[in-house]
Amino acid sequence: MTIPSMSSTDHLAACIDIGGSKAILGLVTADGQEVARERFPVAAAYDPRELADLLATRMRHLAAQAGLSWDRIRGLGYSTTGMLDVDSGTIFSSPNQGGWVDVPFAPLLAQAFGLPVRIEMDANAAALGERWLGAGEAANPFILVIVGTGIGAGIISDGKVFRGHRGTAGEFGHLSIDPHGPLCYCGNRGCLESIASGPAITNRVRQALAEGGTGAMAGIDHLCPETVFQLAREGDALAQDIVTVTVESLAQGITNLIHLLNPQVIAIGGGVGLGAADLLLDPLRASVRQRVGSWVDMEQTRIVNARLANDAGLLGAAWLVWNLL
Amino acid sequence: MTIPSMSSTDHLAACIDIGGSKAILGLVTADGQEVARERFPVAAAYDPRELADLLATRMRHLAAQAGLSWDRIRGLGYSTTGMLDVDSGTIFSSPNQGGWVDVPFAPLLAQAFGLPVRIEMDANAAALGERWLGAGEAANPFILVIVGTGIGAGIISDGKVFRGHRGTAGEFGHLSIDPHGPLCYCGNRGCLESIASGPAITNRVRQALAEGGTGAMAGIDHLCPETVFQLAREGDALAQDIVTVTVESLAQGITNLIHLLNPQVIAIGGGVGLGAADLLLDPLRASVRQRVGSWVDMEQTRIVNARLANDAGLLGAAWLVWNLL
Repeated sequence: MTIPSMSSTDHLAACIDIGGSKAILGLVTADGQEVARERFPVAAAYDPRELADLLATRMRHLAAQAGLSWDRIRGLGYSTTGMLDVDSGTIFSSPNQGGWVDVPFAPLLAQAFGLPVRIEMDANAAALGERWLGAGEAANPFILVIVGTGIGAGIISDGKVFRGHRGTAGEFGHLSIDPHGPLCYCGNRGCLESIASGPAITNRVRQALAEGGTGAMAGIDHLCPETVFQLAREGDALAQDIVTVTVESLAQGITNLIHLLNPQVIAIGGGVGLGAADLLLDPLRASVRQRVGSWVDMEQTRIVNARLANDAGLLGAAWLVWNLL
Repeated sequence: MTIPSMSSTDHLAACIDIGGSKAILGLVTADGQEVARERFPVAAAYDPRELADLLATRMRHLAAQAGLSWDRIRGLGYSTTGMLDVDSGTIFSSPNQGGWVDVPFAPLLAQAFGLPVRIEMDANAAALGERWLGAGEAANPFILVIVGTGIGAGIISDGKVFRGHRGTAGEFGHLSIDPHGPLCYCGNRGCLESIASGPAITNRVRQALAEGGTGAMAGIDHLCPETVFQLAREGDALAQDIVTVTVESLAQGITNLIHLLNPQVIAIGGGVGLGAADLLLDPLRASVRQRVGSWVDMEQTRIVNARLANDAGLLGAAWLVWNLL
């Protein structure tokens, strides 16, 4: 790996982005350049202390491999799934990590790494990363909308995560946009996540086929959203209908975001959002422009693609080190 | 008028809450006590300088009547309809005030009053007032939802108005909650304002009657929301149906607010919100509790009635003087 220009005394941020099945570790300079990175699978069933020790061992190994001495590392930024309190570093619950409940994980990480630690929820970390080095362009407010297996958002206002009273702000996927819409696992009806997420898209195809829909998708056993999008590109009418509902639902939700929060930039990320950006972004912009009231200056509210893809969370974790430690 | 305990050298805030047809002027102490107030009708067609001069004359008269010398007045806080820039004090547009466009009104007021001036949009001023002296209880975030002729909200986060990039945040009335809902004047479908505002409620009654609905309302020529609510209290089935739709629509919108912003307190105000609080508040709480996901701790998100009624804007304007001048 080529090491970007940095003096041998410059500090680095250690950063980790961890999901249900994999961890990405990185070492990042103050101007956002990656000096080293590693990605490896993690099991969901780790004991917290065991996971902290494992991550510290891998990070020390990564630093050694890159010829970087540990005392140049300024701190650790950590992006994770689950509900948490960033100030105490407690993870209240993490369905993707063995059902942890009320784990004081930042202190465990600090002990294992011998470094100050700051943790953040994954969508918020990704939004911080995009705002720092990606699509955010220092916009205020900046919102990263993530459309993938789930739907979520990170809201950055005045340079800080807008997290609300108990840290649960940004649940864009549970914005209910249709009182007669599908029942969501949360108990409400018509949540965006139950209409426009990856699993919702394939569910809608299955339902359309069961109701007599035809086309190329009728012959496919294991349908994934990528296939639906590819068939839409190739002109399959049913796939195109599914894409249209996805676009209109996201447009309704994003129009709501604009009315409530008047963001300067909304970036669309996530596996579905970026994987089908060629099908989604322009129609989404057109639909929002048509829906939003005349008093909202859409020249002043840009809807763009996210730019950092899977690196957003890792770079957001590095931002935490450079700005909050 | 009894003057609350204050020394003859204490300072006062001059404050004004102006709508399309009336102005309320007040003199308020630093702890939120009204020393004097006056309410009078204003025509919509005033020239800006003429209006500033009129308001200054009336305020000087009010102070003199109360035996207060002008040099005890610390500044002027001004709550107004319309779109505006609080920092420059420019009113971009005010449909309720003769169609003003790009009027630098705070400077005109400063000249007429000989005082520093801070202006704020009406919903935001009311939210500041409620947070200071009413239902807000220093909550963070605090949201005042106003349900009346229109529907709007003021969002207060970290003690400041959340206004977004260009000042249009808080347009709760244009949250679209139903893609098949009624067409709103803004161009979108299913906006809360087109379902649950005062005029929307009477529209729905008219529509229900036209579609064959029966009951006491069929015989009433000039229906107002208050009548609908009174008939619902008296057991009229159609009126009760209308109230149920109003509650469920507001509950869907408020659940969305909770998911996006995780407020500590949401206060319901406005003519409809407070006038029918006995019919709305408890069912609204129950519906939100049922809709919101299990990860939202509803013990930590209180839904309450606003407490300052028509004084919220005036007291919010006074808050501006004590905190921002």
